[in-house]
Amino acid sequence: MSEPIGAPGTARPGGRTARVREAVLRAAGDALVDNGLGGVDLAEVARRAGVGKTTVYRRWGTVPGLVADMLAEMAESSLPRADTGSLDADLAALAALNVATLTDERQGPLFKAVIAAATWDEPTAVALRGFYRARIAEWAPCVDLGIERGDVPEGTDAAEVIRAVSAPLYYRLLVSGDPLDADTGKRAAAAAAAAARLGAFVT
Amino acid sequence: MSEPIGAPGTARPGGRTARVREAVLRAAGDALVDNGLGGVDLAEVARRAGVGKTTVYRRWGTVPGLVADMLAEMAESSLPRADTGSLDADLAALAALNVATLTDERQGPLFKAVIAAATWDEPTAVALRGFYRARIAEWAPCVDLGIERGDVPEGTDAAEVIRAVSAPLYYRLLVSGDPLDADTGKRAAAAAAAAARLGAFVT
Repeated sequence: MSEPIGAPGTARPGGRTARVREAVLRAAGDALVDNGLGGVDLAEVARRAGVGKTTVYRRWGTVPGLVADMLAEMAESSLPRADTGSLDADLAALAALNVATLTDERQGPLFKAVIAAATWDEPTAVALRGFYRARIAEWAPCVDLGIERGDVPEGTDAAEVIRAVSAPLYYRLLVSGDPLDADTGKRAAAAAAAAARLGAFVT
Repeated sequence: MSEPIGAPGTARPGGRTARVREAVLRAAGDALVDNGLGGVDLAEVARRAGVGKTTVYRRWGTVPGLVADMLAEMAESSLPRADTGSLDADLAALAALNVATLTDERQGPLFKAVIAAATWDEPTAVALRGFYRARIAEWAPCVDLGIERGDVPEGTDAAEVIRAVSAPLYYRLLVSGDPLDADTGKRAAAAAAAAARLGAFVT
């Protein structure tokens, strides 16, 4: 449940506009998890957020517009990449972050709901692809630094190594239903690093 | 679109019961792709299949029952594992089969729809997990044979190697939206084989 804006403890830096955005996006996320994309309604989101309907219609316009802004906000507030000086440790940090996000009580169901919506709604698919493009670009320099250090061969496709770390975790979450835990994360990172070292991602 | 049973060319070995099942499951798949799980209706499936409503209610009972049988049928009719004598070639065959299925005009949207439904419907999630458990068990002996041949270390988790081949392909289909083609499949197989060889899947 989201608290209405102005409730004690919800004030954040950034002023009223930022607080409205936070409350509306949180209410939109709640609605998406509870009802799926087809059940998200702008007026109901406004009510849950404690914000005037007109504000929501004027600022976000449509449900796809709201979901796109939610993903933009998730990209903005995601953690920056690791920089440990070792490719193995950087990829392990990425895997751990993925596991923490996908098993988080709120973020896990939210990612599942957005990914499910993206299978049938093109604007959501476009926004989701943009989110992952931004996240992959954020982490790719870990691999480029690994190339510079000689950990992995020249010509390694950095983005593909980053995808290889995340893929087994999403596969478990969405497809096979196998458990997702710290060990799964470590293994995904180690497998991607090993394959990269052997040149499997050279293009 | 499904043809009504009895239409020219739709007769299959197995008699009337098998033909009814085929027609109903095909209509159920069409409905799932067109409307999502929430839009599947048993009476409408019966109508599209050209089968009596009572037959559908008596045999499948509920929409989750119908989806579970659809996944059971998909598992039954899936191709057996490769046995080329080489782990690399076996995994490449698995990846190619995955790519062919996920990019197939009918199977691709069907898998997407079932996976989306499984994010919010527990009986569908259970049936989907059963499908992948069966498929992973079918292909795991390729890795066990690789261990016997000394291609990969003792103690390698065969199921995890199989998951590692499929994961990047599903990740592209469902999450990142990056293209899925023959080269992607080859790279997924090569990366899993390389990581397995280096012991990344030893438990």
